Formats: sequence, C-alpha cells, structure tokens
Amino acid sequence: MTGCVFCGIVAGDVETVVVERDPAGVAFLDGRPVFKGHVLVVPRDHIEVLADLPQKALAPFFGLVQRVATAVETGLGAGGTFVALNNRVSQSVPHLHVHVVPRTKGDGLRGFFWPRTKYASPEEAETYAERIRAALAGNARER
Amino acid sequence: MTGCVFCGIVAGDVETVVVERDPAGVAFLDGRPVFKGHVLVVPRDHIEVLADLPQKALAPFFGLVQRVATAVETGLGAGGTFVALNNRVSQSVPHLHVHVVPRTKGDGLRGFFWPRTKYASPEEAETYAERIRAALAGNARER
Repeated sequence: MTGCVFCGIVAGDVETVVVERDPAGVAFLDGRPVFKGHVLVVPRDHIEVLADLPQKALAPFFGLVQRVATAVETGLGAGGTFVALNNRVSQSVPHLHVHVVPRTKGDGLRGFFWPRTKYASPEEAETYAERIRAALAGNARER
Repeated sequence: MTGCVFCGIVAGDVETVVVERDPAGVAFLDGRPVFKGHVLVVPRDHIEVLADLPQKALAPFFGLVQRVATAVETGLGAGGTFVALNNRVSQSVPHLHVHVVPRTKGDGLRGFFWPRTKYASPEEAETYAERIRAALAGNARER
C-alpha cells in the first residue's frame, strides 16, 4: 500500500536491516529495539491486523515467526524470546507485525504483565467469559 | 503431562472459566488478568514453547488465537487486543500459552515496549542481523 513503511520494506524501497525474505513475509531489525536483536516479522500483503490474515496464510506466516523466534534465541544465545503483536491499540504501523524480542533471565523486562488485576467475584469473571463466548459463536455463524 | 496445570485444564480436571474448547486448543480466562477479559489460549498437547509446535498445528492453533482475539475485541467492545507469548523467560507455565489481552486507547498499558534502546552504529545492527541470519540458515539445514 502506498505510504505504508512496511510495504516499502517488503518491496525493497525502504532501506532496513533484513534478516529473512520468505514467500510468507519479511523479517527485519526493529530500528528502536527493546533489546538488541529485536526483529519484526510482517506479511508481504498489506494486512492490517491479525483478524485479517487469510486462513491459508496462517501456517506459512506463523511458521516464519516460529523460525525467526528460534533463530533469535539460538543466534543471539538468548535464554528465550517474547513474541507479541498489537492489534489497533498501540499498533504504530497499521500493517500486521509480530515482534520477536530476545530475552534473558533478569533482563528487567517484567513487562506490562504487572501489575495484574483480579475479578471481584467468580460471577464477574463469568460475565466476561460469556461475552467472549457469545462473540465466538456470533463470529462462527458469520463465517 | 502429569502436574501441568494447563494439561489439567485441557483434560477438564482443573476448574477454570473456559471460553472455547476447540480441537486445536482450549481458551480460558487468566485468573490474574492484565485487564479483565484477558484470555489464555493453549494447545491440547503438552507443547512447551512455540518452536515445538508441529507444522501441521500452526494453522489450527493460530486460527483459534485469531478467532479468540476477534471475539475478545468485539465481545468486550475493546479498541484492540494485545497478543503475546513468552518462550522460556517469563514463561510461568512451561506449556505454550498465548495471551490475548483486551486493549483500550489510554488504558495505561504502554507496556514493556518502552523504553527502547538503539544500536550504536549501523555496523552493530548488522552484526546482530548476521547472527540471526546464520541461525536461520543453520536451522534450515537441520530441518
């Protein structure tokens, strides 16, 4: 898509440090890494969010993510990886991109996973679950 | 696997608030949510990290994650979602689990994506990329 920086990277028009070009997508270094070696993986097509990724693209695209995650870990001698994507909120570029961040125990990335909250009661948890279940059922009918 | 709480949830032996049971996996509420409606999606088999997910499971499993992400967003009227998984480091349960967290603009979850660092030079970035590329090539040979 014209004006999309990630489409520009896929097309080779925007210069960046590419680690892999694959039919399923392109993987390149995030220029402002959480930790050095932080890679972004994008599909070649201008797909905005995860929900828009076609069914037939799931295995090739996440297969690429999987390969990149393994390579970030082994190549950089990392203890593990963090693999994450933002849909819409906090999504800086509206072209699906999966972050693969090398992790080391004690690296200070406790992350946004703290603090946690809690449900006021089992009943409150159930109301959340029920809304998600209803949406799953509704979306299934629409497919 | 005996002693794995997520295997217990898959088997129905551990009580939790399930939102979806699918051949590809089970989705249930995280009991200590980042935001209420935070769901975990796990494969039925005891797979430890993303790298261990078999190729044939990629499309069904990430298809389930995709459906759950859409349902969390629409069912809860969220502005978006955050979809994330930890491999080894910060992985509380050694059974692959994808977090699907409802997001709202201004919800305060700037997350671990800040602060960012930077590469000292283009050459430094290139050394990181080269190590990841070498690992990708090495892993490809082993497959």
